[in-house]
Amino acid sequence: MGLTRLFTDVDFQRAGLEMHALMERLYPICRSITGQGIRDTFTALRGEIPLEVHRVPSGTPVFDWTVPREWNLRDAYIKDARGVKVVDLQRSSLHVVGYSVPVHERMQLRDLRPHLHSLPEHPDWIPYRASYYRENWGFCLTHRQLESLQDGEYEVVIDSTLEDGQLDYAECVVEGREEAEVLISAHACHPSLCNDNLSGVVLSTCLARLLAERRPRLTYRFVFIPTIIGSITWLARNEERAGRIRHGLVVTCVGDAGAFTYKRSRRGDADVDRAAAHVLRHSGFEHEVIDFFPYGYDERNYCSPGFDLPVGSLSRTTHGRFPEYHTSADNLDFVRPRHLAESLQVYLRLLETLENDGTWLNTNPKCEPQLGRRGLYNVIGGLKSGQTEELAMFWVLNQCDGRHSLLDIAERSGIAFDTIAHVADRLAEHGLLTPARS
Amino acid sequence: MGLTRLFTDVDFQRAGLEMHALMERLYPICRSITGQGIRDTFTALRGEIPLEVHRVPSGTPVFDWTVPREWNLRDAYIKDARGVKVVDLQRSSLHVVGYSVPVHERMQLRDLRPHLHSLPEHPDWIPYRASYYRENWGFCLTHRQLESLQDGEYEVVIDSTLEDGQLDYAECVVEGREEAEVLISAHACHPSLCNDNLSGVVLSTCLARLLAERRPRLTYRFVFIPTIIGSITWLARNEERAGRIRHGLVVTCVGDAGAFTYKRSRRGDADVDRAAAHVLRHSGFEHEVIDFFPYGYDERNYCSPGFDLPVGSLSRTTHGRFPEYHTSADNLDFVRPRHLAESLQVYLRLLETLENDGTWLNTNPKCEPQLGRRGLYNVIGGLKSGQTEELAMFWVLNQCDGRHSLLDIAERSGIAFDTIAHVADRLAEHGLLTPARS
Amino acid sequence: MGLTRLFTDVDFQRAGLEMHALMERLYPICRSITGQGIRDTFTALRGEIPLEVHRVPSGTPVFDWTVPREWNLRDAYIKDARGVKVVDLQRSSLHVVGYSVPVHERMQLRDLRPHLHSLPEHPDWIPYRASYYRENWGFCLTHRQLESLQDGEYEVVIDSTLEDGQLDYAECVVEGREEAEVLISAHACHPSLCNDNLSGVVLSTCLARLLAERRPRLTYRFVFIPTIIGSITWLARNEERAGRIRHGLVVTCVGDAGAFTYKRSRRGDADVDRAAAHVLRHSGFEHEVIDFFPYGYDERNYCSPGFDLPVGSLSRTTHGRFPEYHTSADNLDFVRPRHLAESLQVYLRLLETLENDGTWLNTNPKCEPQLGRRGLYNVIGGLKSGQTEELAMFWVLNQCDGRHSLLDIAERSGIAFDTIAHVADRLAEHGLLTPARS
Repeated sequence: MGLTRLFTDVDFQRAGLEMHALMERLYPICRSITGQGIRDTFTALRGEIPLEVHRVPSGTPVFDWTVPREWNLRDAYIKDARGVKVVDLQRSSLHVVGYSVPVHERMQLRDLRPHLHSLPEHPDWIPYRASYYRENWGFCLTHRQLESLQDGEYEVVIDSTLEDGQLDYAECVVEGREEAEVLISAHACHPSLCNDNLSGVVLSTCLARLLAERRPRLTYRFVFIPTIIGSITWLARNEERAGRIRHGLVVTCVGDAGAFTYKRSRRGDADVDRAAAHVLRHSGFEHEVIDFFPYGYDERNYCSPGFDLPVGSLSRTTHGRFPEYHTSADNLDFVRPRHLAESLQVYLRLLETLENDGTWLNTNPKCEPQLGRRGLYNVIGGLKSGQTEELAMFWVLNQCDGRHSLLDIAERSGIAFDTIAHVADRLAEHGLLTPARS
Repeated sequence: MGLTRLFTDVDFQRAGLEMHALMERLYPICRSITGQGIRDTFTALRGEIPLEVHRVPSGTPVFDWTVPREWNLRDAYIKDARGVKVVDLQRSSLHVVGYSVPVHERMQLRDLRPHLHSLPEHPDWIPYRASYYRENWGFCLTHRQLESLQDGEYEVVIDSTLEDGQLDYAECVVEGREEAEVLISAHACHPSLCNDNLSGVVLSTCLARLLAERRPRLTYRFVFIPTIIGSITWLARNEERAGRIRHGLVVTCVGDAGAFTYKRSRRGDADVDRAAAHVLRHSGFEHEVIDFFPYGYDERNYCSPGFDLPVGSLSRTTHGRFPEYHTSADNLDFVRPRHLAESLQVYLRLLETLENDGTWLNTNPKCEPQLGRRGLYNVIGGLKSGQTEELAMFWVLNQCDGRHSLLDIAERSGIAFDTIAHVADRLAEHGLLTPARS
Repeated sequence: MGLTRLFTDVDFQRAGLEMHALMERLYPICRSITGQGIRDTFTALRGEIPLEVHRVPSGTPVFDWTVPREWNLRDAYIKDARGVKVVDLQRSSLHVVGYSVPVHERMQLRDLRPHLHSLPEHPDWIPYRASYYRENWGFCLTHRQLESLQDGEYEVVIDSTLEDGQLDYAECVVEGREEAEVLISAHACHPSLCNDNLSGVVLSTCLARLLAERRPRLTYRFVFIPTIIGSITWLARNEERAGRIRHGLVVTCVGDAGAFTYKRSRRGDADVDRAAAHVLRHSGFEHEVIDFFPYGYDERNYCSPGFDLPVGSLSRTTHGRFPEYHTSADNLDFVRPRHLAESLQVYLRLLETLENDGTWLNTNPKCEPQLGRRGLYNVIGGLKSGQTEELAMFWVLNQCDGRHSLLDIAERSGIAFDTIAHVADRLAEHGLLTPARS
């Protein structure tokens, strides 16, 4: 499947703008791991792709955890003695600590202070904080706001509810010709933060739409989840299905200007790990491939020892490594259409590699076949690219002994996978290759 | 077997001169992959070593190929309007494109032009071209010649025949005490080109003569073949014998002044690969060891997946990497006796390593034996070389547990193979080692 | 077992002083591989630790060797013509070549000369020489002494005996809860030489005393032996026990100021090899890890192919690499208490690693357990060290699938073993880990 072949630079540019436009619509929604915000997000995505939303009641046991109560936030502010709202949820969804319990109190600044969070090193940014599993409340504000607060009495209102309800997650499945699945997982629980992880949400949405337009070989399962508890819940409800996952990717932080980072699965040498390293190496983009570590986002659950799924994570700058991370500076300016488009390009190349990888048998394994009389040699012309194709043919013929996949051959030869896959198709058309497993 | 031990510097010098002298006799012959030229070449070699010539009729199927028609060339020239031969086969066997079909025509320069090949970047060199598997004709000439041609009519004569006949290849077998074979393959089809590959032909001839004077352990099979079609034909007729090949080397480009290059077999870790790397590392010569790639000369067939033979290629500058490659500048001055002698030295060391490698058992595996009372310790004297020998003895005793060959031990200890093999002999004489397999 | 945890810097300082004080008492004793000197040494050590001395009669066959005759030296000197003792054993035990046969002769300087050994490059140092297995005699002296000798007659006296007697070696066993043994081997045969190997003797003694004060998991067997013949003799008498040795260390040259050197066992990847490399990497000390070679001290017998025990050697500057080696300059000033204390620290860390290594199973392998509700997450505080502990917990949970030991996890995570072992204990207390093998 030539996922990227029909794509021109203009197509990518347009896709980048569309992804950014979708992000703009999702940005203002006040999201958390449960509640109306994430449901509104899924409703918005449903305008783009078919999406099945799953509801799991609070209190449901999921492995060592329990699905938490649902949190909803209607309003929140701090009013000073003169009645002026010095902090107001309506101005930023980041102003309230996620999962804050309801509060309506008058208190002195010195008592309010321990509930106020700011970033002295970035005095104009609002930090993002949450306290899902320990009851607490608080406000986040810029350090300048904090410093301007005068001693005196304040009215503190958090009009929230924390009650039995449900956890929502959404799935979009693109059926392929084979049952084996590719899991694409994006967390959709953060409030107004763009790179982490509206970028992952819109890129996944775009991928789902593009794949649905084609007829892929593999089946693609896109999951949009609240982070950590979402993957735990999904895995608890899909233990059997997990066995069908042949490759997986956690999509986060794909919209900043930084170099690409691929974090390997726990296995370290899964096909997706090798394909990602290969695609990045041939992408022309700056990149880094790093080893798995049991921290980060949902890969830590997909890669827990009881599952050990072949799930890696492909980002640009990874979580916690950019100063804007988990602050109001991770906004619509920080994520640019161009960067989303580049990420789309790399993801498509990677999926294309997974789609087209396979193991073939040389039907003439003893000595090389005579390519010339089949018009496969020197007919392409003396072009540089032609020579690479000829060399690629020799590599494919030499290595297709049933023990080497096309990706193996691309790795050993140093030739880009798409060239290897292309000449394998040509050789197969001439009967010189046959699938290794029927 | 101490192949190199009896050889002095003077011996090597003489051998270099003899190889070069033989090359001078072979140089003028107008060779191609079939025909009288290669037969004349074998006749000349028969003066040096016993040689069995095999004839395979045109049209014989050999795997995916067919033995081609036989090509012979009696004369060829281009005459200008005044009757002057501006290009004349008698001056260089490179002037005619190999396998040119017969031509006798009068034509304008503009029509002749597409059939003329020159090298603008080397205006005094004649390129070498051939078109074995597509009917064509042409002349090769210096760029200066080409530029001096005036518009007008030319008489173009290629007095060639392309008819059913035979493909010839030659073998020289040096019987050893064991049936396992070492294949030494040199292509002998190129016309007046010295490094590629008269150098390989004369070095193989010299090796065959030297080995025949000794009684080697392994059996050596030297094959002189037309490149590509020759190895395909040989393999097609020797499928069973191929299983007996324990080590193999393709001998090409061994007469230039460049650093040595060893190209590994497809397996990458065959004994010959490890021995070649070891010998080069301890040779004192500049060298490079490169991975297999399915291109180059006959190793691509020996290493095709259906055979996957342990055949590497030991050259100096490899094919296509020196500017003189496939031009008239690859001549008797480009290849020097001294370089042939150095190549002989490295080849002999390598064959000696393959001859003497083996697996031994320490007969006193528990704690080291008392070397002193056997005169093996400190008796050699406090010399530097003596110390290496003592250390080599300790290594051999420590590693001879039946799982490590002498080459393994040389590699692990960093001591040259010949020292390791020498002390193994001494230890065996004292009953401290015994062969691991009888 | 927290071998190092109760140790303060002051404790290490005191231990260094105590080891050096013991060395001072052992220094003057005139030792050799047999005889009264090594027995006196064992008597002195018996004041520190329980020690069982084994006696093996001269002439006993031990593998390829025979226990040698016992050598004792009462007095030795060279008197000049005026009756002045120009060389006198009473001034240094190094003055007589070890195992010198008895001599009482008058001889001219020119006849004496071949029996005199000095070091021209270090004119104030006395070399150390011995000739155990070939009958000989000689004196060692400073080069200045040698040069001051006038021509003339000298009275030469070596009042030694070389008679059937015994070879002595000593063992101290610290019983552990398990039968598996750790072998700690120190050669105790050299005369007045401090780094090689009184340092090893006193460090082993100190380790034995410290381990006896705790109740280790593994059983520790300390052996004090004459080098080479001692390990051969021990192995010959303990062939069966050798199978119980799970880890082993040869302790030599541990008192100089140089960087640490760990020499791997013949296996190269034994637990002790990996643990030593890990401990050194995290020690903060300069160090080098080198491959096994079948030379050096008793590791060459422990690692002979018939035993191939997992025995490495942890030194500071290794044998032969410091100029003072085997000279009178390897004295009580060359070895400092501080360096002994540092070596003790590294040895304790290494033994602690071997003690605490093990394989655990995550009892909640599917997705990570909820650490927060067990007070294991974010309760430690936001400290840097706390974060390492949290990350260590995630690593341990992720990797404890029964196929990775704690040392494996430390290696993969890059976190120090003691942190990994510590969090494993905490997780086990909470029922989140269970031993992989009961």
